[in-house]
Amino acid sequence: MRLRNNPKALDTLKENDKFVIMEPSLYKGKWLTVFDNDNPIHIEIGMGKGDFIYQLATQNPDINYIGLEKYPSVLATAVNKVNSLGCLPNVRFISFDAISLQDIFITNEVSQIYLNFSDPWPKNKHEKRRLTSHTFLPIYQDILKEEGHIEFKTDNRGLFEFSLVSFNAYKMPLLYISLDLHNSEEKEGNIMSEYERKFCQKGPIYKAVVRF
Amino acid sequence: MRLRNNPKALDTLKENDKFVIMEPSLYKGKWLTVFDNDNPIHIEIGMGKGDFIYQLATQNPDINYIGLEKYPSVLATAVNKVNSLGCLPNVRFISFDAISLQDIFITNEVSQIYLNFSDPWPKNKHEKRRLTSHTFLPIYQDILKEEGHIEFKTDNRGLFEFSLVSFNAYKMPLLYISLDLHNSEEKEGNIMSEYERKFCQKGPIYKAVVRF
Repeated sequence: MRLRNNPKALDTLKENDKFVIMEPSLYKGKWLTVFDNDNPIHIEIGMGKGDFIYQLATQNPDINYIGLEKYPSVLATAVNKVNSLGCLPNVRFISFDAISLQDIFITNEVSQIYLNFSDPWPKNKHEKRRLTSHTFLPIYQDILKEEGHIEFKTDNRGLFEFSLVSFNAYKMPLLYISLDLHNSEEKEGNIMSEYERKFCQKGPIYKAVVRF
Repeated sequence: MRLRNNPKALDTLKENDKFVIMEPSLYKGKWLTVFDNDNPIHIEIGMGKGDFIYQLATQNPDINYIGLEKYPSVLATAVNKVNSLGCLPNVRFISFDAISLQDIFITNEVSQIYLNFSDPWPKNKHEKRRLTSHTFLPIYQDILKEEGHIEFKTDNRGLFEFSLVSFNAYKMPLLYISLDLHNSEEKEGNIMSEYERKFCQKGPIYKAVVRF
């Protein structure tokens, strides 16, 4: 996600505190009070402009979705989009860094994690920053329920190769893999962001589903 | 490998018993007597026309190579090729089915296994026949030395996806992966058969290195 600074981004987030949670640590272990139901919580880490999570939430009203995006400027774009499309009761957004997930979720609080087109951090010296590195896997393992899945999609071959090795070294079962999702049977039902729609023209979209 | 029946194939093999081992079970546990040295033994299962193993053996005179090919008609083609290119002291061929590998190798007798462009057996009902299925992995595990590697290449996406899941379910460490070998740094040093030269034009060549 290319980042353009938006000096008004934080204001946009604050003005939309109906669905943007400004102090997420207040809800650690209590997220179901936010949604006022007992439905499972699925999160997307690095939600970007929110296309994916918004579509998913529309299709699955019985699941609570929390989208995390590190950069307020990017999240503000998602917020504006939701305001034009209409709020959904089962979606909340947070401007938050995945490294601190355990500050906002207790053990086993999350039922599913989505990682879509994460920053590939292509330089070797930055590999610890990749969202599928061993920096993050223990964090996901803590907040994710037993048998909870991680669904990971990317168009970046290097990131996908790295991630498969990383998951394997962490001894994670590989439940599903596609090396060309848009030419797979599983294409049906695939929810796409704008980014995916654009980049699937240029090469394969890779997908893996793993658990701990 | 498309199979054309060659009624003279067995005769061709017998006439070349200098490097085609007609009764391989006689050498179970004694392969080093065939090569008359203490060098490690690497095998290729499904060697086809032998391009790959012949080039590998030329480059690595201190490794003993045994190529297995199920179909005598295919192996006869490899034999004729070796006769025109020149014999190598460190290569032997066998017409043999991988399912019976333990009839010809004792535990830990083999240092490395190559699987190149194996038959994908695309129908689900045939998945047990795939050379990376759980039919074969316990056999490889037995004959392969501890820390011995399996190097697997294919142009068949379905077979590669299946194989990654199969290796993972068998809890095999994934040491290396490329989802487009010919556009990887590791392209240098990649030994190609005629088949690989032809099919790398049509799509990516996938490679994985695993061990038990």
